[in-house]
Amino acid sequence: MISNRELYPLISVDIALFSVVEETLKVLLVKRAQEPEAKKWALPGGVLKPDRDISLEATARRVLADKVAVELPHLEEVATYSGPDRDPRGWSIAVLFYALLPHDQVNALVRSKVEALSWENALSPENLLAFDHTAQLQAALEILRDKVVSHALPLHLMPEKFTLTALQRTCEAILGGPIDKSVFRRRIRGSHDLIELDEFVRGAQRPAHLYRASEGFKF
Amino acid sequence: MISNRELYPLISVDIALFSVVEETLKVLLVKRAQEPEAKKWALPGGVLKPDRDISLEATARRVLADKVAVELPHLEEVATYSGPDRDPRGWSIAVLFYALLPHDQVNALVRSKVEALSWENALSPENLLAFDHTAQLQAALEILRDKVVSHALPLHLMPEKFTLTALQRTCEAILGGPIDKSVFRRRIRGSHDLIELDEFVRGAQRPAHLYRASEGFKF
Repeated sequence: MISNRELYPLISVDIALFSVVEETLKVLLVKRAQEPEAKKWALPGGVLKPDRDISLEATARRVLADKVAVELPHLEEVATYSGPDRDPRGWSIAVLFYALLPHDQVNALVRSKVEALSWENALSPENLLAFDHTAQLQAALEILRDKVVSHALPLHLMPEKFTLTALQRTCEAILGGPIDKSVFRRRIRGSHDLIELDEFVRGAQRPAHLYRASEGFKF
Repeated sequence: MISNRELYPLISVDIALFSVVEETLKVLLVKRAQEPEAKKWALPGGVLKPDRDISLEATARRVLADKVAVELPHLEEVATYSGPDRDPRGWSIAVLFYALLPHDQVNALVRSKVEALSWENALSPENLLAFDHTAQLQAALEILRDKVVSHALPLHLMPEKFTLTALQRTCEAILGGPIDKSVFRRRIRGSHDLIELDEFVRGAQRPAHLYRASEGFKF
């Protein structure tokens, strides 16, 4: 006998929502309320509703609005996870997206069932995530790092105005190690995604220029 | 009233199967036999069979074996296409993969309903592909080019043994323009994916070294 799930797989989305808080790369996790995998930490996710969603990206936006109370301009697909064994409910497909959130929005989101964990903590064996979310988080992290390595600037993580030093610290938090300042400044000079403002902040040394992201910058 | 398709979307895979033949980047297309979109050229594709496939990648392998009679070692996911309007049968999801095929395997595959078109021809307005396959092909092409630009070598496209000149011509066919020879040779020297053989081919000038891909090379 063929069950319904063998004919019609469960279709859902998961979202790896990253932020850099105090120079640490964090990922937002939710504590699962229901079975399966109740009480485990998981990437925010939810089931496709074809009567409401015009695409899987729309599903991801709806899930983020509902579960994490955040509306995001930029979601990017990472990969699809599929098969008969990844969810005890039967054959399932999860499409993984990632998104970047400025750190000043993170604190407002953290509630009893939403927490921002450092990526190392989220991936530690003690915090074993629900379903295949450990593998999903690793894949999202790899894409995020590849982007920064290949010279994209994670401007979605920055506040409206920021110094180049703050941007460098954010890149370093993502890569997990220091970047040479002169190499970083050279990269910045080649970028069309940054606009230098006629504003400064007074630092410990000389005043530092403020920057903002240009409209329609790419990440 | 809610139709079945609104509850259970159609789930399928499409595959952009590339090859470089006579220094031209080509994509394998099949002529659709059935409605919808009958008689249009399309990327090879097919519907998920949860009772047979252990993943969507397995679906893609099965479809390629059935429709194009090819078994491939390496398939990579590009993106997911979804929504209520992309297929006239209702809400649908297509997961796009791409794969690279050595040119010596292409001719055997070309039959009445399978053809290798140059990418420009496949994307020309006269050959308008079925469904959203034009957008899918463009996305796959972009990923393929990004990989070559970021220094991956498209070794899956090469025969077992090849010269560096042949490899450079293949990269150039993908990028659609010339690569400086000294830049290319420098990139080659930094790669762990190539093994220099103690074999040569006699060319118009001096004999040229033959190379093969190392086991487990990455693309």
